[in-house]
Amino acid sequence: MALIVQKYGGTSVANADRIRSLANRVGRFKQKGHQIVVVVSAMSGETNRLIALAQEITPNPNPRELDVIVSTGEQVTIGMTCLALQELGYKAKSYTGSQVKILTDESHGKARIINIDGHNMQKDLAEGYIVVVAGFQGCDAQGNITTLGRGGSDTTGVALAAALKADECQIYTDVDGVYTTDPRIVPEARRLDKITFEEMLELASQGSKVLQTRSVEFAGKYKVKLRVLSSFQDEGEGTLITFEEDSKDNNMENPLISGIAFNRDEAKVIILGVPDTPGIAYQILGPIADANIDVDMIIQNQGADGTTDFTFTVHKNEMSKALAILRDKVQAKIHAREIKGDDNIAKVSIVGVGMRSHVGIASQMFRTLSEEGINIQMISTSEIKIAVVIEEKYMEPAVRVLHQAFELETA
Amino acid sequence: MALIVQKYGGTSVANADRIRSLANRVGRFKQKGHQIVVVVSAMSGETNRLIALAQEITPNPNPRELDVIVSTGEQVTIGMTCLALQELGYKAKSYTGSQVKILTDESHGKARIINIDGHNMQKDLAEGYIVVVAGFQGCDAQGNITTLGRGGSDTTGVALAAALKADECQIYTDVDGVYTTDPRIVPEARRLDKITFEEMLELASQGSKVLQTRSVEFAGKYKVKLRVLSSFQDEGEGTLITFEEDSKDNNMENPLISGIAFNRDEAKVIILGVPDTPGIAYQILGPIADANIDVDMIIQNQGADGTTDFTFTVHKNEMSKALAILRDKVQAKIHAREIKGDDNIAKVSIVGVGMRSHVGIASQMFRTLSEEGINIQMISTSEIKIAVVIEEKYMEPAVRVLHQAFELETA
Repeated sequence: MALIVQKYGGTSVANADRIRSLANRVGRFKQKGHQIVVVVSAMSGETNRLIALAQEITPNPNPRELDVIVSTGEQVTIGMTCLALQELGYKAKSYTGSQVKILTDESHGKARIINIDGHNMQKDLAEGYIVVVAGFQGCDAQGNITTLGRGGSDTTGVALAAALKADECQIYTDVDGVYTTDPRIVPEARRLDKITFEEMLELASQGSKVLQTRSVEFAGKYKVKLRVLSSFQDEGEGTLITFEEDSKDNNMENPLISGIAFNRDEAKVIILGVPDTPGIAYQILGPIADANIDVDMIIQNQGADGTTDFTFTVHKNEMSKALAILRDKVQAKIHAREIKGDDNIAKVSIVGVGMRSHVGIASQMFRTLSEEGINIQMISTSEIKIAVVIEEKYMEPAVRVLHQAFELETA
Repeated sequence: MALIVQKYGGTSVANADRIRSLANRVGRFKQKGHQIVVVVSAMSGETNRLIALAQEITPNPNPRELDVIVSTGEQVTIGMTCLALQELGYKAKSYTGSQVKILTDESHGKARIINIDGHNMQKDLAEGYIVVVAGFQGCDAQGNITTLGRGGSDTTGVALAAALKADECQIYTDVDGVYTTDPRIVPEARRLDKITFEEMLELASQGSKVLQTRSVEFAGKYKVKLRVLSSFQDEGEGTLITFEEDSKDNNMENPLISGIAFNRDEAKVIILGVPDTPGIAYQILGPIADANIDVDMIIQNQGADGTTDFTFTVHKNEMSKALAILRDKVQAKIHAREIKGDDNIAKVSIVGVGMRSHVGIASQMFRTLSEEGINIQMISTSEIKIAVVIEEKYMEPAVRVLHQAFELETA
């Protein structure tokens, strides 16, 4: 007997038929003798419908009240899911985030989980209930309803698995696992049976949509065994996210590169001709952080003339806001020559723990792109990742040639 | 400065425009210096939509999970209402039933309020917030979400007014007050400036749809000053529900009859030829109560032959269930000759505290109906009410002639 947390996204609960099919799947696990906690998202489209409703009143809804409104999406789904399980003869009980309770900080719309009280759920599981929990939501210490932000249901699943010390957290999606890259762009892309937690984290943060970055971080922090599966196929083992230690023995056999991620959602902000003095980075990025704008890549290049060029990337939606802040509050103070933006970019990243023990991966990547005539605008690396920013129109060809160059289509 | 609880029904929050108009009205009271607690229902049609959604899974949803689903209706409205108030520049804060918390018993779908913790609301009011509370819902001692049943938002409003010791509870509806009878049936029906609490209670329980019976009971129990107003008119004092003591002085001037209520929702269950022995009523009604079927009128008539006929009324929807229970479990045991049902009936009631001090009201009512050729099937009386059951097709003419006979069109 195992304790399994299963998370189902919006498409898996899109209508009554889908919910019935979900209940059938959950029931099969229950019949094998497992204890099951199900985490569900809102029915697909529902969160957007609720946001649109709020925006009929005001384009900038108060975050506390917006959370009150949008959190009803998952609340409906947990009730529906319990009804479907009960209809099949199972004992089932639903919990909102507040009822669990999933304690978060007070950042409405992107709250972070602080603690989960697993006591009531454990009691229900011991009594044979299937427990159904609303993803994406929690409450702060004052009892205000909070939401975790888009994709937060994955995080709820992993956090519950950690709190309940579950044997496995299964994330059901509309794909049957983690692929070497998006099969819509590279038809030869291959499903991975396993991927290390660190690789998954890099892939997620570099743009792979399969798992939300924070849920992977959470899984790593609490060593939650995570598996990505298809909610539309009955067979298949999906992709298991492992911890590197588990697979250390056969590390030498690991492929150099596990996957290629990409992202069209970023834009570049460039500050040219800044006198190169200490504290420049903080003077530039401080006001950006104060405005709650997330920054991804940051690059500073010292020039020959005692000035420096400073470039960073933000979400496309926030480029003009970032530019306005820099022009209004920063440019004069740091004596920057020019501030400009470019949202015609894409980021392509190769990820793999294998690159730790192999030199030459970066140069192979750069050569491959160069042979295709693709100019690299920015480079950022971590121990197991190399990310480049290129012109947006070259994104798909870049992914294809890299997939081929690193022989990802063969296991 | 007064503390006012205002309750708005589903048509007052049917869409963004209506919610904006509600916010304007609330704001005008706030600007006069009052402290305001707003209670809102779900947007009209929303509760039915949510029930239909649940019924796509199962025709008989589990009551706990159904409450989880339908309670989202008001949760959306409180958020929307706060956004509209904030848009006008007011401080506003929403509360679900669980957040208040409105503690109820565990009867999902028709829970009763046990206690209300007014502490957080009072703090908010003192800080200048308009407090917006979800009607119709609460939670039990274990934190399960409960609903109060249809019309429960009125009860929420009155209960909040009682808990907060509000100066007045204003119920905004689509009519501008309580009428002598339904103006759709008697165009001469007249709005009452005042009505006593006991009369209102009888009118509500006899079928007047203006206020929900339980909310009137609550108002009586806690002496909450209740006023019914139109949410679509800016002028008008509506109808004030008073306590009889307040108007004792001019009691002699009170009209004999205040209003006429009617109800097409009941059906008759008749048990014929029961041996007249002690305990018969319990043997008949015990199993009906066990099946959670509400019984309204009960009449027992001793016959000449040592048998008795027993008749009671239930909601039309429950007649066949009641008949099945009696035929299966009761008929043989009590040796009843026949059990039959009749859902072709209506109940018409005249209500007025004036009838306490005047004889002859009942006979005037019976004579009026008799002159119209309307046969009376059942009679039930209280100190301030006379109700008769007649054939359904005579309901509207009966209401019209009674309205005229008791001169209700003139003040």
